[in-house]
Amino acid sequence: AVGVMRPFGARAISIEALKPSDSFQRRHNSPTLEEQKVMAEACGFESMDALIDATVPKSIRRPDLDMSKYGEGLTESQMLAHFKALASKNKVMKSYIGMGYYDTHVPTVILRNILENPGWYTQYTPYQAEIAQGRLESLLNFQTMITDLTGMPMSNASLLDEGTAAAEAMTMCSNVARGRKKTFLVADNCHPQTIEVCRTRADGLGLKVVVADYKKFDYSSKDVSGVLVQYPATDGSVHDYSDFIKNAHAHGVKVVMATDLLSLTVLTPPGELGADMVVGSAQRFGVPMGYGGPHAAFLATSQEYKRLMPGRIIGMSIDATGKPCLRMAMQTREQHIRRDKATSNICTAQALLANMAAMYAVYHGPEGLKTIANRVHGLAAVFSAGASKLGLETGSAPFFDTVKVMVGEGKAEKIAKDAASHGANLRVYDSKSVTLSFDETTTIGDVNTLFKVFAGGKNVDFSAEEIASGVESRLPSSLERTSAYLTHPVFNQYHSEHELLRYLHRLQAKDLSLVHSMIPLGSCTMKLNATTEMIPVTWPELANLHPFAPEDQVQGYQQMFEELGDLLCEITGFDSMSLQPNAGAAGEYAGLMVIRAYHHARGDTHRNVCIIPVSAHGTNPASAAMCGMKIVTVGTDALGNVDIAELKKAAEAHKDNLAALMVTYPSTHGVYEEGIDEICNIIHQYGGQVYMDGANMNAQVGLTSPGHIGADVCHLNLHKTFCIPHGGGGPGMGPIGVKKHLAPFLPSHPVVGTGGFPRPEKTQPLGPISAAPYGSALILPISYSYIAMMGNKGLTDASKLAILNANYMAKRLEDHYPVLFRGVNGTCAHEFIIDLRKFKDTAGIEAEDVAKRLMDYGYHAPTMSWPVSGTLMIEPTESESKAELDRFCDALISIREEIAAIESGEAGRDDNVLKGAPHPASVVIAEEWTKPYSREVAAFPASWVRASKFWPTTGRVDNVFGDRNLVCTNPSVEVIDEKMAAAA
Amino acid sequence: AVGVMRPFGARAISIEALKPSDSFQRRHNSPTLEEQKVMAEACGFESMDALIDATVPKSIRRPDLDMSKYGEGLTESQMLAHFKALASKNKVMKSYIGMGYYDTHVPTVILRNILENPGWYTQYTPYQAEIAQGRLESLLNFQTMITDLTGMPMSNASLLDEGTAAAEAMTMCSNVARGRKKTFLVADNCHPQTIEVCRTRADGLGLKVVVADYKKFDYSSKDVSGVLVQYPATDGSVHDYSDFIKNAHAHGVKVVMATDLLSLTVLTPPGELGADMVVGSAQRFGVPMGYGGPHAAFLATSQEYKRLMPGRIIGMSIDATGKPCLRMAMQTREQHIRRDKATSNICTAQALLANMAAMYAVYHGPEGLKTIANRVHGLAAVFSAGASKLGLETGSAPFFDTVKVMVGEGKAEKIAKDAASHGANLRVYDSKSVTLSFDETTTIGDVNTLFKVFAGGKNVDFSAEEIASGVESRLPSSLERTSAYLTHPVFNQYHSEHELLRYLHRLQAKDLSLVHSMIPLGSCTMKLNATTEMIPVTWPELANLHPFAPEDQVQGYQQMFEELGDLLCEITGFDSMSLQPNAGAAGEYAGLMVIRAYHHARGDTHRNVCIIPVSAHGTNPASAAMCGMKIVTVGTDALGNVDIAELKKAAEAHKDNLAALMVTYPSTHGVYEEGIDEICNIIHQYGGQVYMDGANMNAQVGLTSPGHIGADVCHLNLHKTFCIPHGGGGPGMGPIGVKKHLAPFLPSHPVVGTGGFPRPEKTQPLGPISAAPYGSALILPISYSYIAMMGNKGLTDASKLAILNANYMAKRLEDHYPVLFRGVNGTCAHEFIIDLRKFKDTAGIEAEDVAKRLMDYGYHAPTMSWPVSGTLMIEPTESESKAELDRFCDALISIREEIAAIESGEAGRDDNVLKGAPHPASVVIAEEWTKPYSREVAAFPASWVRASKFWPTTGRVDNVFGDRNLVCTNPSVEVIDEKMAAAA
Ligand SMILES: Cc1ncc(COP(=O)(O)O)c(C=O)c1O
Ligand SMILES: Cc1ncc(COP(=O)(O)O)c(C=O)c1O
Ligand SMILES: O=C([O-])O
Repeated sequence: AVGVMRPFGARAISIEALKPSDSFQRRHNSPTLEEQKVMAEACGFESMDALIDATVPKSIRRPDLDMSKYGEGLTESQMLAHFKALASKNKVMKSYIGMGYYDTHVPTVILRNILENPGWYTQYTPYQAEIAQGRLESLLNFQTMITDLTGMPMSNASLLDEGTAAAEAMTMCSNVARGRKKTFLVADNCHPQTIEVCRTRADGLGLKVVVADYKKFDYSSKDVSGVLVQYPATDGSVHDYSDFIKNAHAHGVKVVMATDLLSLTVLTPPGELGADMVVGSAQRFGVPMGYGGPHAAFLATSQEYKRLMPGRIIGMSIDATGKPCLRMAMQTREQHIRRDKATSNICTAQALLANMAAMYAVYHGPEGLKTIANRVHGLAAVFSAGASKLGLETGSAPFFDTVKVMVGEGKAEKIAKDAASHGANLRVYDSKSVTLSFDETTTIGDVNTLFKVFAGGKNVDFSAEEIASGVESRLPSSLERTSAYLTHPVFNQYHSEHELLRYLHRLQAKDLSLVHSMIPLGSCTMKLNATTEMIPVTWPELANLHPFAPEDQVQGYQQMFEELGDLLCEITGFDSMSLQPNAGAAGEYAGLMVIRAYHHARGDTHRNVCIIPVSAHGTNPASAAMCGMKIVTVGTDALGNVDIAELKKAAEAHKDNLAALMVTYPSTHGVYEEGIDEICNIIHQYGGQVYMDGANMNAQVGLTSPGHIGADVCHLNLHKTFCIPHGGGGPGMGPIGVKKHLAPFLPSHPVVGTGGFPRPEKTQPLGPISAAPYGSALILPISYSYIAMMGNKGLTDASKLAILNANYMAKRLEDHYPVLFRGVNGTCAHEFIIDLRKFKDTAGIEAEDVAKRLMDYGYHAPTMSWPVSGTLMIEPTESESKAELDRFCDALISIREEIAAIESGEAGRDDNVLKGAPHPASVVIAEEWTKPYSREVAAFPASWVRASKFWPTTGRVDNVFGDRNLVCTNPSVEVIDEKMAAAA
Repeated sequence: AVGVMRPFGARAISIEALKPSDSFQRRHNSPTLEEQKVMAEACGFESMDALIDATVPKSIRRPDLDMSKYGEGLTESQMLAHFKALASKNKVMKSYIGMGYYDTHVPTVILRNILENPGWYTQYTPYQAEIAQGRLESLLNFQTMITDLTGMPMSNASLLDEGTAAAEAMTMCSNVARGRKKTFLVADNCHPQTIEVCRTRADGLGLKVVVADYKKFDYSSKDVSGVLVQYPATDGSVHDYSDFIKNAHAHGVKVVMATDLLSLTVLTPPGELGADMVVGSAQRFGVPMGYGGPHAAFLATSQEYKRLMPGRIIGMSIDATGKPCLRMAMQTREQHIRRDKATSNICTAQALLANMAAMYAVYHGPEGLKTIANRVHGLAAVFSAGASKLGLETGSAPFFDTVKVMVGEGKAEKIAKDAASHGANLRVYDSKSVTLSFDETTTIGDVNTLFKVFAGGKNVDFSAEEIASGVESRLPSSLERTSAYLTHPVFNQYHSEHELLRYLHRLQAKDLSLVHSMIPLGSCTMKLNATTEMIPVTWPELANLHPFAPEDQVQGYQQMFEELGDLLCEITGFDSMSLQPNAGAAGEYAGLMVIRAYHHARGDTHRNVCIIPVSAHGTNPASAAMCGMKIVTVGTDALGNVDIAELKKAAEAHKDNLAALMVTYPSTHGVYEEGIDEICNIIHQYGGQVYMDGANMNAQVGLTSPGHIGADVCHLNLHKTFCIPHGGGGPGMGPIGVKKHLAPFLPSHPVVGTGGFPRPEKTQPLGPISAAPYGSALILPISYSYIAMMGNKGLTDASKLAILNANYMAKRLEDHYPVLFRGVNGTCAHEFIIDLRKFKDTAGIEAEDVAKRLMDYGYHAPTMSWPVSGTLMIEPTESESKAELDRFCDALISIREEIAAIESGEAGRDDNVLKGAPHPASVVIAEEWTKPYSREVAAFPASWVRASKFWPTTGRVDNVFGDRNLVCTNPSVEVIDEKMAAAA
């Protein structure tokens, strides 16, 4: 008989088995339970938990995380469904608000192949130039685009937002005047947030911002270092500043112009008008508004001020074979080297967005951009003409994209409401006028809708189509751009999708990112940036909102902010969070400004001393300097811990003026200092506030917390612990958490009132420290999703695994390299330092040689020579599997053997496989091979490289040459192209 | 005075300038107007249009395209907005319909990095194995997954859908019996579409399908070649077929089992039950339902039948250095070699989807899959128990994921409606019962909702959570799976997202795709697959619909089908289109079956002769054979045109039985035959129908059309002319267009009635030829978007540019290589053939040597040795820029110089840079270098490769070795891993 039924299995169904099967934790936390056990045992502990107990001081252990709503953690599909519901509470309207933020068509080929592509978004800042030539080229394109459009000789790449870019320019003006002139004049035709960010910044720096009509600027005090004007102005009018600039210069005053890149395709560029510095945002070049960010801002100036330039500068140099290559130039200006004397505290900036904007220019080309500009202007002009026909006054000033309409006293709010009911957001300029900014996405149909709005909802008897041909350009003819721009081939050959696609992929192929291998950069937490976390970022409901959109249209965002505030408070032990700072260093600055405001509010205006250990990250002193604080340095002891005796002495010495301590926890040496509670107590005892640098938060979550430890403020690098990808040098987010007493002072915003989440009872806010009220709001979903998917246990396990992974690696390496600094039980935190200093003597080998040799093994070097010169700091994160940790250790052990060969005399001190590293294909395939080691040893030093080789594109880059011969602008790209073809 | 206003510019605003600026045409059609002129002139014409006029016979030129609605072409942003509105007319419900289609969580890391990644989706079928080892490895994983789960020794990768896979197995059974047994028994417990697809196929092949209860199968006729049963059955019941199979075997009958992969993680696999062949779909392994497709189906069998296997088989071999590598095995079975004697007509299949499914298994691993299966079963069991509690009979049969509920005579439709109003789609099994299939996405909350539905909308007094622990497994204990599966390391080490991400990228890096360079494969039309076209494909509103969802939930799709039908009719000159065939070859088969049905309907059942020129693609005769047609071959003349005299003679000779002519236009030789109208006339004159192979449609759109020329039927390869990416060997779509008299016969479907678009007045449909009513509906948005964005002029320009680009290349190459076949005015169509045959004599060089050497230049070879042996057929498409065309020509010219060096004796005949090609890094970096040419010449033969090198991963692959030592299953992967690590 066929198919006879047999009795069923007796197994019962368990509820556990019915739970959704796509849980996220095991995708993020790489090591399996079995691997955890093996690794813990290798470290001499019977379990991961035993290792953790021995590592994290008992005194600071916190109770278990309790994020009730997301305690269990959502699965990936639940997360996306939840976020879709949240996002759908936002309403996407047509935005005419302007004020530095414009809707734009993100070219889909750029959207998919940069913004949604881990090959572009998971890279780190291109410190290791030999494996970063792709994005270095793209960032040079960005600089070229900025210099061409602004008419200035050099630009950086890039700054955080237009407001802070203006503040940086203000600082530069002050520095040009060697600090002797304290006044900075800001034209009242600048965007309000730009003005207020400058005010806040001036406050900290002890400068004075005076806001006035630029035509009435008064230089008679002789105290004016610089001025800021906007071009086109915030109300849309285009002013010819030529004479104004001559006059300022005659008074020895520097002129900063805030500008709009698109307008510069048709308007005389600031450089030709005589500006000294030019700032602005590249947002409208294909970067979504994102409810405020992230976007790349820029600062362009003349080479004269190059040593005062804030932020990254990409420049040419040559490699070991004499071929042209790119790398970050003049790093000696930067915080990681110059500390409180640095030109700025910028570390993480907006590289990914700068790349997007640059590629937008590459894709459209000069003609394409001009077409867009003329179209935008045409729509604005037609609208203005139509408004006149409707009897409304729009003024006679020339404009580019923004039209001001006088609607009658007291009627501005009403017309804005009417417009909103037609799906359009206007800017209420004042009680009697509105402005409308047109952009790439505006259609002629939209203009007709606006006519209807301004006709009080009635149909009008003309249409935009009908009146267009009778409308004249409203651009000022005296300011018509005549000079060429974007003439370099890179902007003129990739206009079809195939060409751009391949250009993007050619560049991508040159850059090592997390899609290739682990990037164990100590202090940078290069963990998984999960796809599910990234997906909502490019949803239109999140991406296409103006930061100043009315509150009822942004309920999804607001709910997310509130929930995220709660979650981060639970995680950090704080009472309120500000989501405004858009980088870690911006968080430091914001946090210190909060502390300052607190002291001032209590009348303690004299409290201005900030104690910072020598081991601190460069951004700490740089940020403290921006708040006008006096920095007192304290040393560390032999174990790498803060020297508590010295700290105590310093605190006591400065007890009357003590403002704050800045301390990183676990320490930048990778150790949970046992004395941390005592340190906090000392500072508090002397009236200071404890600022904790949260860069190492990945070693705390679920185990301890800044609040629990005793800190008063802390920034979180959401781009580290909370999974925002590093984007090749940004974006990032640096929200700050504070204790209750500081919550009232959290930054607000002149356009959109804001403050801490959860909202404190009392508020007495700082001015804004970023241009947008919620910083780079668009990337907050990444951190929110991470937290919600991981849940209490997932997050805590992540911290444990980060620590376990580091200890396992330290264990595997300790017989080969000295491991510097450990905790009392011989363990390290989530990162550790291996000491290479002795090899200088024994083999003539330096940390850089090891870093470069790692590239031949397919790896990005750990953090080099920071916080201790001559060392490497390794941070594996929880997202790396044991197999990957082992491979990386194998690489380092193999390199140790290569060093041993030098030590033994088997290999020469000057010509060996480390000094020769990295080895690009061009070198190992060259006809001539004169090295004392083989080509195979050079290129294939490990089995995994044979199976899949990542090639460095250049030989070792010569940094000194590049700084001596600074080339970071347009003509250089041509030279590169030429030399590059000959090179490789 | 500062800021004085100047008068405005006098330029007026033009309406033209107000048009949206993100037009698509210039992104797709790469050459600029200036380049077009230069290229036309190089070809000896004063303009592109002059060249076109000289090339396309006047007699067949059509009037201008007139797609009123999309005549101007939408911009990219308009397209996305339009499609969003369209898609929102679909309603996504919970699907319990089952029947071979189940909702699934597409792991987002796979979604983004395969399905949304041009690095994976733009590749061609891996004929050039040395630059395709990545997807070959992934497809081997697919085969391993299938063999492991089914318990069979070998599998292919892959087939079009489960229905056609069953039909292929039927054919195999017939072939095993050497065609002597005409009957194939199909169990009535199979899915209805599977049954009907087999019936249609049997009809063409002259076989007889008998559908019956498998327990009552009657073998007494001795005419039975095979049987098909389903496991689990379509109603969910799980039958133990062991005895049934023994009995069938005792009667000399082969047993085919249709199965479900997920169930096989917990059920005894068919191989262990004794099945001879196993078929099914891998859809639920992480491939969206997509309203029917695309998905990968499979056929697994024993090595005994390997020479009868349809479709692609991936197998191991060794390369020139003796190292293991992968390539497509046993191609001698396939249509491109065996033509009408081939095992099937499969060409384009479902490689991309097979890769996704394989990666799903890699990501989840054996334990993860089992967890999912147990969970799905648990939910089904709990539901069944709850339904019983509600007093409903669910039967006593064991089941896996599908529960049958007896709802009372006449009540099935009503309960389905109730369920729909709760957002759930059930399957109406018959008038008194429904079935519910549970899947990975079902939640326990969903089960509670179902309880409510079955309780007539009232709340029930128990919940799934409460009753779960009292519920027992309903899997048959006698069929519990005990054997291991997916034990290979590849399924056990990439379970974290970082590990999978890197595995995906390692594989991707081995494969040359359109992100690297042009792939000028003649007859394959590797044009731009634009990002904007791809974006809607992964929208949930399109991706998450069951093919049998009620019509009111799929209005967006239906509107798209209707519009697409209209657009394609306008383009092709036909009256109606069937969207069912899911590959070009499937279209051929469908079209011939339509012709057959037409003849039969007229009583001309004897018309069964199909004339096919020798130059036809292998799928033509293979498809004709599947329709039981007698193939008569006609030759071509010296110019490559069909020998009209011979054709006429053949038509006359077979005038009584003439069914059809199959003809490709422009010809496979790349020529617009002037005699095409005459050819059509001859066929019509003798009562035949003209079937046009539309693979070369890219040379027709807007210039001529099959309908205009005189064809009666034509398939369109939407994956060629209409931008669906090739996916490394599929998906594709092969809809057919027909003239009015054939429209009634277009295929329908047993579950969802369908037919032609626009709908013909009268219908008399064929049975289904694919499992899903609209084939691979999910990828139709790509073609729709392409057409809508290009508009009348854009599409016509594309054809012109495709022709211009080909002629420009032919011109540049003609002094270096003989160009075979041209039209009367010396021009070629959109592709052309260069003749390499003489180099065999002069230099011992064959087409393959040139093809492999091109890899060293970073290029994929053109189509090799087809349609003429010893040649390369080059098709550039309109999406390639002049710069890219020039680079490719430079490569070929440089290779010609390398050949000349052999001819002159400068290089040896046996050991030269062509014979040594391709040169992987391992070879050029090896310690030992004994070649007579340099390493640099080997690896860097051109400047652009120095700037950006794509490396082949293996030396030249030995095809013969692999076929002699067939290894295409699990253990082989282990061998590979090992050897691969040692290799490279
Ligand atoms: C310890 C520490 N503090 C602060 C920062 C600065 O953060 P951001 O780069 O986000 O500005 C870093 C950056 O790596 C850091 O490591
Ligand atoms: C001329 C011709 N006909 C038919 C086909 C088969 O189409 P498909 O691969 O979509 O089955 C091809 C495929 O390349 C072809 O070139
Ligand atoms: O610059 C650093 O990120 O340390």
